[in-house]
Amino acid sequence: MLQRYLPILSWLPGYSRADLTNDAIAAAVVTIMLIPQGMAYAMLAGLPPQAGLYGAILPLLLYAVFGTSRPLAVGPVAVVALMTAASAGAIAQAGSAEFHYAALWLALISGALMLAMGLFRLGFIANFLSHPVISGFITAAGILIAASQLRHLLGAPIGGKTLPQVIPSIVANLGNINPATVIVSAALLAFLFWARKGAAPLLERFGLAPASAKLLAKTALLVAVVVSTLLAWGLGLERFGIAILGDIPRGLPEFGLPPMDLGLIQLLLVPAVMIAIVGYVESISIAQTLAAKKRQSVNPDNELIALGLANIGAGVSNAMPVTGGLSRTIVNYDAGVSTPAAGAMTALSIGAAIMVLTPLMYFLPRATLAAIIIVAVLSLLDFRALPRTWAYSRADGAAMAATMVFTLLMGVEMGLMAGVGLSLGLFLFRTSRPHMAVVGQVAGTEHFRNVERHRVVTDPAVFAIRVDESLYFPNARALEDRIVQALSDQPDLRHVVLQCTAVNYIDASALESLEAVNTRLKDGGVTFHLSEVKGPVMDQLARGHFLHDLTGEVFLTQFDAMAKLSPDLTRSCAAEQRCDTLLRSA
Amino acid sequence: MLQRYLPILSWLPGYSRADLTNDAIAAAVVTIMLIPQGMAYAMLAGLPPQAGLYGAILPLLLYAVFGTSRPLAVGPVAVVALMTAASAGAIAQAGSAEFHYAALWLALISGALMLAMGLFRLGFIANFLSHPVISGFITAAGILIAASQLRHLLGAPIGGKTLPQVIPSIVANLGNINPATVIVSAALLAFLFWARKGAAPLLERFGLAPASAKLLAKTALLVAVVVSTLLAWGLGLERFGIAILGDIPRGLPEFGLPPMDLGLIQLLLVPAVMIAIVGYVESISIAQTLAAKKRQSVNPDNELIALGLANIGAGVSNAMPVTGGLSRTIVNYDAGVSTPAAGAMTALSIGAAIMVLTPLMYFLPRATLAAIIIVAVLSLLDFRALPRTWAYSRADGAAMAATMVFTLLMGVEMGLMAGVGLSLGLFLFRTSRPHMAVVGQVAGTEHFRNVERHRVVTDPAVFAIRVDESLYFPNARALEDRIVQALSDQPDLRHVVLQCTAVNYIDASALESLEAVNTRLKDGGVTFHLSEVKGPVMDQLARGHFLHDLTGEVFLTQFDAMAKLSPDLTRSCAAEQRCDTLLRSA
Repeated sequence: MLQRYLPILSWLPGYSRADLTNDAIAAAVVTIMLIPQGMAYAMLAGLPPQAGLYGAILPLLLYAVFGTSRPLAVGPVAVVALMTAASAGAIAQAGSAEFHYAALWLALISGALMLAMGLFRLGFIANFLSHPVISGFITAAGILIAASQLRHLLGAPIGGKTLPQVIPSIVANLGNINPATVIVSAALLAFLFWARKGAAPLLERFGLAPASAKLLAKTALLVAVVVSTLLAWGLGLERFGIAILGDIPRGLPEFGLPPMDLGLIQLLLVPAVMIAIVGYVESISIAQTLAAKKRQSVNPDNELIALGLANIGAGVSNAMPVTGGLSRTIVNYDAGVSTPAAGAMTALSIGAAIMVLTPLMYFLPRATLAAIIIVAVLSLLDFRALPRTWAYSRADGAAMAATMVFTLLMGVEMGLMAGVGLSLGLFLFRTSRPHMAVVGQVAGTEHFRNVERHRVVTDPAVFAIRVDESLYFPNARALEDRIVQALSDQPDLRHVVLQCTAVNYIDASALESLEAVNTRLKDGGVTFHLSEVKGPVMDQLARGHFLHDLTGEVFLTQFDAMAKLSPDLTRSCAAEQRCDTLLRSA
Repeated sequence: MLQRYLPILSWLPGYSRADLTNDAIAAAVVTIMLIPQGMAYAMLAGLPPQAGLYGAILPLLLYAVFGTSRPLAVGPVAVVALMTAASAGAIAQAGSAEFHYAALWLALISGALMLAMGLFRLGFIANFLSHPVISGFITAAGILIAASQLRHLLGAPIGGKTLPQVIPSIVANLGNINPATVIVSAALLAFLFWARKGAAPLLERFGLAPASAKLLAKTALLVAVVVSTLLAWGLGLERFGIAILGDIPRGLPEFGLPPMDLGLIQLLLVPAVMIAIVGYVESISIAQTLAAKKRQSVNPDNELIALGLANIGAGVSNAMPVTGGLSRTIVNYDAGVSTPAAGAMTALSIGAAIMVLTPLMYFLPRATLAAIIIVAVLSLLDFRALPRTWAYSRADGAAMAATMVFTLLMGVEMGLMAGVGLSLGLFLFRTSRPHMAVVGQVAGTEHFRNVERHRVVTDPAVFAIRVDESLYFPNARALEDRIVQALSDQPDLRHVVLQCTAVNYIDASALESLEAVNTRLKDGGVTFHLSEVKGPVMDQLARGHFLHDLTGEVFLTQFDAMAKLSPDLTRSCAAEQRCDTLLRSA
């Protein structure tokens, strides 16, 4: 019981020296990435740089105690930072105290929501975000994130949260671009892009083992930070118009709730729901993918609890919303992380860094952080997913395209809502127009298949129809209309058999519809039968009057039904291997 | 082609003298009901009495030309009048010119929406309103309608649009009740209630044929109007505080659009959508029920066009939103109506009545109209539907209860939205937790059923599972989890067969999930097979890489799969009539 709510108990008692070594190495690499990324994502969220560093202390300690994923690296991430900027920006001016309070309340509310979802085992809600919607959303969010960094890369006040705002702003600011900033940005981007693929081979050539070279290559971010800071200090780049980070308060965050404001909380409720769901989905998919590789398991409800507490921790420590991030988790995993203790070590290292290093970052160019963000979000973009998904399913492709277009044109909230709404709406639309197949017997078998796809034997006195959907209110009339049509098309009709193999549920509207069909057929002297009704559906029908009023029978199988209603044809068809003779005689 | 858009052409050329007689009698009876009902429903909508009469002229003429239902009696109806009052009342004070303009715009916009839905064949949208939601909505609306008439029945200024507003208003107005009004109301209600059941038998005792007696009994409304008006005039009831109708402008309505106001139109868009859908659903269900009885047919798209034009007609003739009403349609049908010409005749009679009779209605007590509404809405109330629906299906019962509670407590719009939202949400929730059955072979057959419900034979090397739902994003993980669990539970597992009888669709998320299952099983040395995949699903799978990567096969039937994967057991089981021996050996 205790272990259910405190996953730390599952690994801490057996913690070994080998675990310690593995975790310490992983923590060192993640810390080196996290210091610049944390500040960069805070800047992306519109918050002071320290908010990102604070988001890498208490949240990580809490996740280490309550989380079930071993390699998951929690902290500020790009997409959630963008969503924070959009939601808080709708309420207050970026940089203002109200803006920061809004960001803290977003962390607190989304944390409380995740915690509640975990405790009430509502994690399944996240399943309503389909893969195509997530994929489209992440790609579009990546583009918006990149666009938001143009102001730092070009040194011009380019603003806007959606493409229709950003693009005119770029045009209007063409004259304001700062050449020195552009040069620094270009050099940084070139170095970071090169480092992604080129650093490890280079280090190997200097004699490092491939694994160490790969790890050391991750310090490219640190190199970019250190070199650009030194250059900015040494050459006094500030006087060429290059923006630098400035003062970062030294020392640990102050703890406490932001000022209570019920009106603000109400405004943030919907954005917080979205941040909670997107944060959870992003985190759980990474955690599950890596767990499957190592045959470990993550518990979705525990993950919600752990992420919820991590966000509440972020909210009370002056930080920003957090979740499990893709790039650092993979680095953590590649570095050989053994237990969540690595997260706790990362937190302690970040804490130490805040005490000591922040004065040294005064001259860090903002363009460096922007370049780090750009390189990080490139891994989020997946433009090939759209044609691939569209080729498989128009509905999924449309949902993905809608998510991307709405996100780019109208922002992250509208994009997500449009995607979820459209994907659910298209599912409902599809189920409202079910596939219906008239079925006949496959010769030599007891099996019945679609007359349009298979060579099958049918009896003109029997209309056997299979409806490939649960019967519920949006599609109830469709079946009724189809059967009534058969009644007028087939003058010799004596029996109608509804094959219910694919009917998983019959709701009250559909039941009324079936009762109407039964009455209509009865008036026309035709009996109405069901076959292959599944257990749960049968249980449910037994609760109404329908089975009592049914003019025909309920058969275990379609073969049983046809063997009773058309015995000669059915038995000889089952015995024959070829249906040609039967088809000719029928 | 012309006939498709002008259904009048299907009956007018063959119009006979017998048709004329039938239609004239029906029109006479309907007119007698419609004059008081029209004024009553206008009062219910918060409009002057003539709006209801105008709503029975042009709309009826238009429906006669474009409608496909022969007995449908179009005009003002109670539920739509209530919705009009609620929607217009949210924008302007009842009785003001703005209020009347809002009502006219509601008719115009909902008419245009219906027309567009009909032209674009979008009538299926109305199917998303389930029977339980409609039934719960109509009952709750009936209660609100009855509550809204208390002010006229009691002669006290009782107001409010929802029960939490009406009930305190009743309590506050207990001292304002007018005793004379209460006496008149009680007498009218007693007479009208008695007339519903008692008038026809009494007339029969006076020697009338049963059919004529039944028709003549419908004039009870007219009797109530005439007698109460004469008493109010003769006894000067006004001085006892009984409210009378007062001046009604004589003559036909003025035609023309209400003043254009884009802000107003925008505010009315959502209510107009609801009025269009509720009006259409109410009308089409009556029309289809009666058409089925006479083996006639109504065309849903034509009905939308006809009702749309009728409402546009109402909007340009100073009337109010209209639709096909239950009570007058049944009277029309019972009176032996033959063609929509009866509607045109009704319109002409109402037109004549407006020219001549309106001055005579000066002294008509408002309580008379209120009593007519009360008696009419009683037929809308169906309190037994809730326990009946709940017993059949908790989900449908919950949707019905939610619709009723939200309508009563928060008004018609919130009620409808809650009902539709909950019924769709519950469907999505159900499909997100699909029923999954491990299946085995029924001895002596080639049929496979749930191991928990049937005595069946299974092979421990094969995990055969049937998932009773289409595979789509909300439930994709559930199947993945179930199969992965079987992999760890069954150490002898060699094959997994997914029986897809009930799978009507596999979306992109579920496809990714199946690919993940395939890979997981492959890593564990287990092959993954599908069986009974339906044609449309197979076509779709063929568009991706899945079938190529699949470690196993796709079998036509579950029997084929088992005959290949576990040949001895399967064939001997098919031959055996009892599975006991097999079960013991297995």
